Amino acid sequence: MFDILLSIREESESPLYLRIYKQIRERITCGSILGNTRLPSVKALQLQLNISKTPIETAYQMLSAEGFVYSKPRSGYYSVNMGSACSPGIDMPSDAGTLQSPEQPMLREYAIDFHPGSVDHDMFPIRTWKRMLNLALEDYSRSIGKSGDMMGEIGLRRALADYLRSSRGVACSPEQIVIGTGISSSMDLLAKLIDGIDHVAYEEPGFKQVRDQLLSHGYRLIPIPVDSESFQIQSLEDSKAHMVYVTPSHQFPTGRVMPYVERERLLHWANKGHAYIIEDDYDGEFRYFGKPIPSLQSIDRHGRVIYIGTFSKAFTPALRMNYMVLPQSFMSKLTKMSSGLSCPSRIEQWAMQAFIEQGHWYRHIRRMRNKYRRKHDQIIECIRAMFGDKVEITGHSAGLHIQITVRTELGANDLLMLAADKGVRVYDFRQMWMKPNDAGYPRIYLGFAGLSESDMDKGIRLLKEAWSDILI
Amino acid sequence: MFDILLSIREESESPLYLRIYKQIRERITCGSILGNTRLPSVKALQLQLNISKTPIETAYQMLSAEGFVYSKPRSGYYSVNMGSACSPGIDMPSDAGTLQSPEQPMLREYAIDFHPGSVDHDMFPIRTWKRMLNLALEDYSRSIGKSGDMMGEIGLRRALADYLRSSRGVACSPEQIVIGTGISSSMDLLAKLIDGIDHVAYEEPGFKQVRDQLLSHGYRLIPIPVDSESFQIQSLEDSKAHMVYVTPSHQFPTGRVMPYVERERLLHWANKGHAYIIEDDYDGEFRYFGKPIPSLQSIDRHGRVIYIGTFSKAFTPALRMNYMVLPQSFMSKLTKMSSGLSCPSRIEQWAMQAFIEQGHWYRHIRRMRNKYRRKHDQIIECIRAMFGDKVEITGHSAGLHIQITVRTELGANDLLMLAADKGVRVYDFRQMWMKPNDAGYPRIYLGFAGLSESDMDKGIRLLKEAWSDILI
Ligand SMILES: Cc1ncc(COP(=O)(O)O)c(C=O)c1O
Ligand SMILES: Cc1ncc(COP(=O)(O)O)c(C=O)c1O
Repeated sequence: MFDILLSIREESESPLYLRIYKQIRERITCGSILGNTRLPSVKALQLQLNISKTPIETAYQMLSAEGFVYSKPRSGYYSVNMGSACSPGIDMPSDAGTLQSPEQPMLREYAIDFHPGSVDHDMFPIRTWKRMLNLALEDYSRSIGKSGDMMGEIGLRRALADYLRSSRGVACSPEQIVIGTGISSSMDLLAKLIDGIDHVAYEEPGFKQVRDQLLSHGYRLIPIPVDSESFQIQSLEDSKAHMVYVTPSHQFPTGRVMPYVERERLLHWANKGHAYIIEDDYDGEFRYFGKPIPSLQSIDRHGRVIYIGTFSKAFTPALRMNYMVLPQSFMSKLTKMSSGLSCPSRIEQWAMQAFIEQGHWYRHIRRMRNKYRRKHDQIIECIRAMFGDKVEITGHSAGLHIQITVRTELGANDLLMLAADKGVRVYDFRQMWMKPNDAGYPRIYLGFAGLSESDMDKGIRLLKEAWSDILI
Repeated sequence: MFDILLSIREESESPLYLRIYKQIRERITCGSILGNTRLPSVKALQLQLNISKTPIETAYQMLSAEGFVYSKPRSGYYSVNMGSACSPGIDMPSDAGTLQSPEQPMLREYAIDFHPGSVDHDMFPIRTWKRMLNLALEDYSRSIGKSGDMMGEIGLRRALADYLRSSRGVACSPEQIVIGTGISSSMDLLAKLIDGIDHVAYEEPGFKQVRDQLLSHGYRLIPIPVDSESFQIQSLEDSKAHMVYVTPSHQFPTGRVMPYVERERLLHWANKGHAYIIEDDYDGEFRYFGKPIPSLQSIDRHGRVIYIGTFSKAFTPALRMNYMVLPQSFMSKLTKMSSGLSCPSRIEQWAMQAFIEQGHWYRHIRRMRNKYRRKHDQIIECIRAMFGDKVEITGHSAGLHIQITVRTELGANDLLMLAADKGVRVYDFRQMWMKPNDAGYPRIYLGFAGLSESDMDKGIRLLKEAWSDILI
């Protein structure tokens, strides 16, 4: 039997049965309770929670009526198999299937998940954020009935312009900033703003979500090979591309940081050919060693760079808020746009503005950088201690994930399955290649931001156990 | 000199100078302080606020440094002319120019704005919503580091499925619901899900924002004439369209309610031709007289209807949250989508789920319906009392705006300008026509949701003054 520990907070407002119902339902739908698992009896939960039978029975009846559990006579309640209805916090939904082991992917229970899209939830400034939300609702109570500016609240754009100038060297006026609901909204907007471009160059491997979207907009994609050593800028120069999508601060997924000379050459290419560079600075806040390299936008003197940043890494992906800095030359077209802008909640924009203006944002970034630096150092140390030279670590010293190359004759998928058997989830980013590349030892990706230090250690230890027999 | 009343709340966290700075800046950027207006002296503000000089001087210095105000020697500070940088809470940005009087549109100060996109802010349940947000942050603190399901939180989709079933007759499973950031995000998603359709029919006049977006996706548009009497379904049947966008509960902008027989005929058309109907039920919660007519989705037995609803009318447009109910047949394509979904904040989705589950939502709708019914009755009564038979009211008994036809030889634009001279803003929805139609007396639109009862009365009274000489 699966033993579940429910927590029934006292101060919560909703009725007891609803809280029990919701907790069990959530665990079933998230896959943290596997399909066909026997659930605790009413009696057992009664003892655990120290409450009467009625709310527990009501909860089970609701779960049963809605098809989350079924009962077997004289045996009790069992969870149903949720199959693909599950969504364990993946920010790349379509990849989920292949990121996991092929058979019964959703039924596995992962005790430890090195998900590259997760961030530290313990450090999330819940109390401060509550205060900012409350403040926003009070300060703007007279604006709450209006929909506001679809490019984003001008106050937040002003605060962001200051932040980007001081911390990322990005030079822009607030009007050049468009607040969006994620990189997907930014790419949709760009497709509407940019005319007459057919060929777009793309890092290979690169961020699949953006690649898919470029394809869905009908662009012809030109892959530019990138590995830990180089971004083959020559092949960009030789191509027909008039736009390129890059992640120079910390290439996704390899983790490579683009050196200054390459940046200059990239800008030169764009100037010469009147091309655009989309600079996705998704985790540029996190650089652990060495001098920060200026963003492309900050060294661009000809308005060729479109800069995209996000709150998903430095703050939380639950907010779904990002921003894009457009060249001045886009302004007239932008202000004429009447539809197709996807803007986040004004309330959260006001809260974020206050968060930045009151200095919490700068403090938060500093705290997170220190925290992630410690996690980064620890995961590297731990991998080195466990695996020695059987594993090569690359793509580190910036960002929230690392790449390891594992000396084995097996493929990445086998490594994932062995890990999964120990309850550990790691990632094979094969889908990040347009043309999957199986040459060499398999590469595995580990995000470290979302795990506690102890889970991280435990996870690496379990990986060692899982893979010890197949390392060469 | 322009006299501004600043309010400096005690409990606010930010420093005094910042609060003064922000308030003045906001009024300048919003156009509530016109360009080139002399601002109160430091001394005057000091007396008004009963504080020391320093924060006021600092605020003015900041405003001056950032170019919001300029100073004239021996005269004081003046606001700059913000031109089109302004954004007075318009939800149809590109229309703003033509919705206003042509000359210096942004410099006018409107004391009373019958904006059809605004809702009542006094009734917004600030305290409850704060509680829901706080609860969401606590209850889901362990999920805050993950990005979640891009179709929307399954819990909210479940709560919505219940609500839609019980109140709008919409039959769907939670999986058919996609939470989005506005109708624009829904239309973008639809364009990705629907293949092989070239011709889309469209109400004429109809919601320009959607029309523009359909055009931007490359569809050929077929206008179907609609007026207070009829929706010319015959011309739809005769057309090549395989999809139609309609607002049957309360046609936008005319306010017509589509009768049952027409709904059946529309569904018949869709079934026969395997066509789709996009039902935009944007203000379906608000019907003041007569029996509610079932939504198209609720009488559709063949999965031809795509139902779109929003929180912008019944709750607040500041939230930027809407939802779309897709036919079952879309499910497999939907679950395979990897990009291009635009999803609102998880935190606000959790809060909305709790708001619905705890019964606040139903209470809120009931309260708002009563409130808006009163405002609706009052505006009609007031217009009748003021204008008698000089003005014909149509499009009432549902929704949050009405249409008036004004007996005059002038055009709609002249009416707007005369109104503006009295500080009242009303709307000419000419842009809602693909081919503007100037036949007959001019039609003016008035939204009543966002105004207090007394401002509404005052506004109508001022309209009477403004137009008294030109009525025939
Ligand atoms: C390469 C890359 N770019 C951008 C993002 C951020 O996307 P968003 O702002 O849509 O959360 C991510 C997040 O996973 C990413 O990995
Ligand atoms: C006809 C119509 N449909 C839909 C909407 C709601 O749009 P959204 O959910 O994007 O706020 C509006 C709001 O103004 C509208 O007038």
